[in-house]
Amino acid sequence: MWKIDRRNIVITESFFNPQTIAVVGASKTPGKVGHAVFANLVQGGFKGRLVPVNPSGGDLMGFECVKDLGDFEGTVDLGVIVVPTHLVKEAVSSSLKAGAKAIVVITAGFKESGAEGAALEKEIADLCVSRGARLMGPNCVGIINTEHLINASFATGMMAQGGISVISQSGAICTTVLDWAEGRHLGLAKLISLGNKADLDENDFLEALADDEQTKVILGYLTSIKSGDKFIRVTESVSAKKPVVILRAGTSESGSRAAASHTGALAGGDISYRAAFKRAGVIRADTFEALLDYSKAFAMQPIPQGDRVAIITNAGGPGIMAADAVENAGMHVAVINKSTAASLKAKLPAAASVGNPIDVLGDADPDRYVMVLDAAQEDDSVDAIIILLAPQAMTSPAEVARAIAQALRGNKPVLASFMGGKEVMPGRDELAAFNLPDYPSPERAVAALKAMVDYNSWLVRPPRIVTRFPVNRHRVERIMGRYRRIRSKQISEVDAKEILRAYDFAVPAGRLATNLEQAIDIAEHAGYPVAIKIVSPDIVHKSDIGGVKLGLSNEDQLADAFDLMMLRIKRKAPDAGIKGVYVEKMVDRGLETIIGMSRDPHFGPMLMFGLGGVFVEVMKDVAFHLAPITADEALKMLEGTKSYDMLRGARGQKKVDPLAIASGLQRISQLVTDFPQIEELDINPFIVGPIGTEPMVADARITLGEAGKEDD
Amino acid sequence: MWKIDRRNIVITESFFNPQTIAVVGASKTPGKVGHAVFANLVQGGFKGRLVPVNPSGGDLMGFECVKDLGDFEGTVDLGVIVVPTHLVKEAVSSSLKAGAKAIVVITAGFKESGAEGAALEKEIADLCVSRGARLMGPNCVGIINTEHLINASFATGMMAQGGISVISQSGAICTTVLDWAEGRHLGLAKLISLGNKADLDENDFLEALADDEQTKVILGYLTSIKSGDKFIRVTESVSAKKPVVILRAGTSESGSRAAASHTGALAGGDISYRAAFKRAGVIRADTFEALLDYSKAFAMQPIPQGDRVAIITNAGGPGIMAADAVENAGMHVAVINKSTAASLKAKLPAAASVGNPIDVLGDADPDRYVMVLDAAQEDDSVDAIIILLAPQAMTSPAEVARAIAQALRGNKPVLASFMGGKEVMPGRDELAAFNLPDYPSPERAVAALKAMVDYNSWLVRPPRIVTRFPVNRHRVERIMGRYRRIRSKQISEVDAKEILRAYDFAVPAGRLATNLEQAIDIAEHAGYPVAIKIVSPDIVHKSDIGGVKLGLSNEDQLADAFDLMMLRIKRKAPDAGIKGVYVEKMVDRGLETIIGMSRDPHFGPMLMFGLGGVFVEVMKDVAFHLAPITADEALKMLEGTKSYDMLRGARGQKKVDPLAIASGLQRISQLVTDFPQIEELDINPFIVGPIGTEPMVADARITLGEAGKEDD
Repeated sequence: MWKIDRRNIVITESFFNPQTIAVVGASKTPGKVGHAVFANLVQGGFKGRLVPVNPSGGDLMGFECVKDLGDFEGTVDLGVIVVPTHLVKEAVSSSLKAGAKAIVVITAGFKESGAEGAALEKEIADLCVSRGARLMGPNCVGIINTEHLINASFATGMMAQGGISVISQSGAICTTVLDWAEGRHLGLAKLISLGNKADLDENDFLEALADDEQTKVILGYLTSIKSGDKFIRVTESVSAKKPVVILRAGTSESGSRAAASHTGALAGGDISYRAAFKRAGVIRADTFEALLDYSKAFAMQPIPQGDRVAIITNAGGPGIMAADAVENAGMHVAVINKSTAASLKAKLPAAASVGNPIDVLGDADPDRYVMVLDAAQEDDSVDAIIILLAPQAMTSPAEVARAIAQALRGNKPVLASFMGGKEVMPGRDELAAFNLPDYPSPERAVAALKAMVDYNSWLVRPPRIVTRFPVNRHRVERIMGRYRRIRSKQISEVDAKEILRAYDFAVPAGRLATNLEQAIDIAEHAGYPVAIKIVSPDIVHKSDIGGVKLGLSNEDQLADAFDLMMLRIKRKAPDAGIKGVYVEKMVDRGLETIIGMSRDPHFGPMLMFGLGGVFVEVMKDVAFHLAPITADEALKMLEGTKSYDMLRGARGQKKVDPLAIASGLQRISQLVTDFPQIEELDINPFIVGPIGTEPMVADARITLGEAGKEDD
Repeated sequence: MWKIDRRNIVITESFFNPQTIAVVGASKTPGKVGHAVFANLVQGGFKGRLVPVNPSGGDLMGFECVKDLGDFEGTVDLGVIVVPTHLVKEAVSSSLKAGAKAIVVITAGFKESGAEGAALEKEIADLCVSRGARLMGPNCVGIINTEHLINASFATGMMAQGGISVISQSGAICTTVLDWAEGRHLGLAKLISLGNKADLDENDFLEALADDEQTKVILGYLTSIKSGDKFIRVTESVSAKKPVVILRAGTSESGSRAAASHTGALAGGDISYRAAFKRAGVIRADTFEALLDYSKAFAMQPIPQGDRVAIITNAGGPGIMAADAVENAGMHVAVINKSTAASLKAKLPAAASVGNPIDVLGDADPDRYVMVLDAAQEDDSVDAIIILLAPQAMTSPAEVARAIAQALRGNKPVLASFMGGKEVMPGRDELAAFNLPDYPSPERAVAALKAMVDYNSWLVRPPRIVTRFPVNRHRVERIMGRYRRIRSKQISEVDAKEILRAYDFAVPAGRLATNLEQAIDIAEHAGYPVAIKIVSPDIVHKSDIGGVKLGLSNEDQLADAFDLMMLRIKRKAPDAGIKGVYVEKMVDRGLETIIGMSRDPHFGPMLMFGLGGVFVEVMKDVAFHLAPITADEALKMLEGTKSYDMLRGARGQKKVDPLAIASGLQRISQLVTDFPQIEELDINPFIVGPIGTEPMVADARITLGEAGKEDD
């Protein structure tokens, strides 16, 4: 059962569909924000009751001003606050008294202007929540809902109704999208300016919009995300119902975090956002135009079932551009069915090309366009259609637009690019009016289509079944408990391997020796060759002071190495407490890989895979995925590296079993999900042998985070 | 001295500035191309003499038709042919008789429709050239020159005058650019529809436009290039005078060529075009919008002297987008001078941000924009300026546009993005009118600026001085002569190394042995360890049949290997003629690199560099450059690989001397320039040791091309 979210109901009822709206700070002076907001509500055509609140009373645009909302006798649903900052708290308070469950604070001067503002903002948010109400803003443009003709914002004019809802953390982006939509004759559904997100944030509104019938696609502009975990959960569920297109700005600021592990160092910056968006099916727009372009396509056209694209054009050049773009995007220029081609050949002029791009020639009239469009819609080898028109002497763009718009069957997406400017503009206007998305260039139409194809791939992805491996969780808890007690964050290699062994990783046979006799004993038991490594809580970089010796082939070599190590350590780290020497069997040669995890501050555990050596260190050829991970996703991670060929036996390398590595990633996923105190984890190298053998943890490093002490 | 090109004069005089224009096929029937062309010439306002040629005579728009141009008494400069295909030759002939030096054939039905058409096209071109005239087309839209109000095309309407000249291989792109320019109130200079390029091609018109004062920037759309060598020579010289922006379409069709060498296999497709454009300073547009966006910036604004960008915005969101885009493009968000910041701080409202982006706030009036623009133009830490405007209640985009346009000093480029649609449109129109390039999104403004920054980098590049090394060219000629005589294209490893030795490469000591005693002798002379390789013109893949044996440490090993090789070869390739066994000293270990060359069918010798092993084979991490190459360019090639860190001592690798590799590339460059019959060349591995040692050619492969027999 889906748990009913109380916030959701407040948003749907009181923010989206209030019966009574009070504007506290409704001003009689044109040019003031308090005037603009009230005027917008009046001019927008709101059918419910409007209550202007102004201490001087009197009439405002035919409505009688209430001097103090405390004296108001009816019940307010939505209170819109536009008074000066120092009066906001009182205005909110009186709105709550009047029964408002929804508060929009448009006024600025809070968190964005310093500590004092932040404190006041928190007070106001707490006040709202404590009274069972919710707060939007402060410092926002307001809210618009075309469905009920509500324009509770200072953005000019009422938008036309349409399927695009907007959530934005920037007020200017709200007004820009509004202006863009108006300029392109596009309709919008809801427009939500998030402001400072003191209470309600993107997650709340995403949830509300998921169930909003008017909304066909959600367009989001975000610079930060309040709760990464929740964001993934919410968007994953929203994306299953409708597309969510987001531009995340501020990517260049983020910089890279200092991190001890490979995984941590490579995982910083924008990578976590990419991984989160991918997991959740969020369509990412990298530019402002892409944000608008993609949203328009989703709002107007059905989702394609595949990536085979038919291109219909009245000129060669634009057709080539579109074909280049389709291939560069990794989609396919459809191979038209033979019967379709034959029938087109019969109906089109001899000079026309019935290959794909289908060139209907410069003198194509609307009927010829429609005839080819019909054929492409019919043809089951075509998943999507791009229609191009270059201005030609004999062509009326407007007539072609009307004709093709009327021929749309809605069984596959059709996107258009009427190229040029003045002459094609009437055609572009017609396309917009008929819900046929039009783009100024073939490349942009193709990019929008690619976003749709990617969304479809996400929709039809295999069910996400995360395997739970039988593990010895209790054993890991005991080790963790020990580190918690000594308040140490750096887990020793020996313990890290113990932890991994408990999660069913193969670890080289080995044990701690406190003297040479024991060491020889262990080595004989494990089998030569062996490695020895100093074990001391006081020594972090073992190799640097001669605390690691590899490839010892027999008792003599072991004895020499042991004595030498003791001598050197005593000299170089005289104060270190030595627990002994760890003796372990050398791992057979194989393909060196790295698997690891770094906990992202926003989205949690980020898994990494890469081939070892130069592939990671020089080429940075790694793939990331958020935990928990499925077997399928883990395999896709491997395929996502450029060096994937190495797993398949490139360069005389023995072929390895990708499933063995995938299973390792899944078990790390389980471990770091079970133990959130693990901040970073590296298995480097994770040595993978030929098919049939088990990969080995040759070295491992686990670091605990601040959370370690409390969460366990 | 620059050689005066006869074509150039014909273009400048007779195509761009004819005194008398005859239209053969001028039709009285509206809707026909022959009518449209003549009408365009009349309506365009051409001041010279117009001669309509129509067999039925009579009046056409007030001009008396000449029935047969053969009877015309004056002299025609430009003949425009719009008669049916089968009458074209006669029409051209009569135009030539009337004195025309310039012929434009608009009529289609030639090369593009088959062999017959191609033959006719060639006849007509030959006819023109034989009479000292030049031919443009056939199968084109025509030519437009706003300078002299000539519209000799069937594209509707006369363009406004401006600085952008257009050369296009697609007629539809011509009309699209025209329509775009009109829609954005932009002026054009010349518009040239290349058509089938039977005679005049892009190179001819590029040369002519280079000296055309009206032309500030050349916008080109090309799908193919007629003479790659010449294209580089011409564009390099044109680019020094004015920017050339080209969209090359059809990149996805090209596919990869089958090639024997690494270099050849990796160098196919679009890489040669990228290398050619880079060499010649051509600004490459990857999309149609980029083509228009970049051209507009170049036509309107000065070239920046650096990449430090100031961003002026009236809203946070767009500012962040622009900053992201600047950093993603590899440019720098300028650090404003302290004095500038202090003075802005004093003049701007407290809430404004004087960091960069400089946020002038949502209520910014024109004066505030101008004040900040003035400061940014003044500040010597700023190379270029991006001005952003999001629609705001208090803002008049048109007034801001006028104010900033008037404040431009022209000392650094200023690009604008007025975001939105309907409300900002008046502002965008003003910007266009004032020659201030405006883009619908911050990202596109930044992309255009980046194109300008790159062009500037090319302009200020160090002088290209190609070093000529003292080499033994004669020795190579002798070896080449031998292969020419036996008509063999595959040069043996031994000879390839000889050739490289002649070009001053270090090659392992070695000689041919015809029996074991000789082999032992050579090995002792060269020093163990040695390698032995079978030498036979009949055996290409030596290793496959046991014809290569490496790392022989002493006489015994050598003797065993020699006898075994003879035994095996006799068994596996009984008919192969064996010349002996090549004995050479093993190369000391070092960093394995690959340097090579593959001759591109368009642009000639393409040099390649990559690190050996997985870097090339798995990661395809290679860099290309056209020969001849300078030392500086060779070093840049090395830096262009992701694995460059390996040269600088990553992963415990000894640091190597990049100059040693660069010198190898330069010497290959010289070799393949001296010997155009060399089709492919691979030095793989080219083993580079620590600084101070000389890189060694461990293996080499040279293949001759078809040209080999004639050119030598």
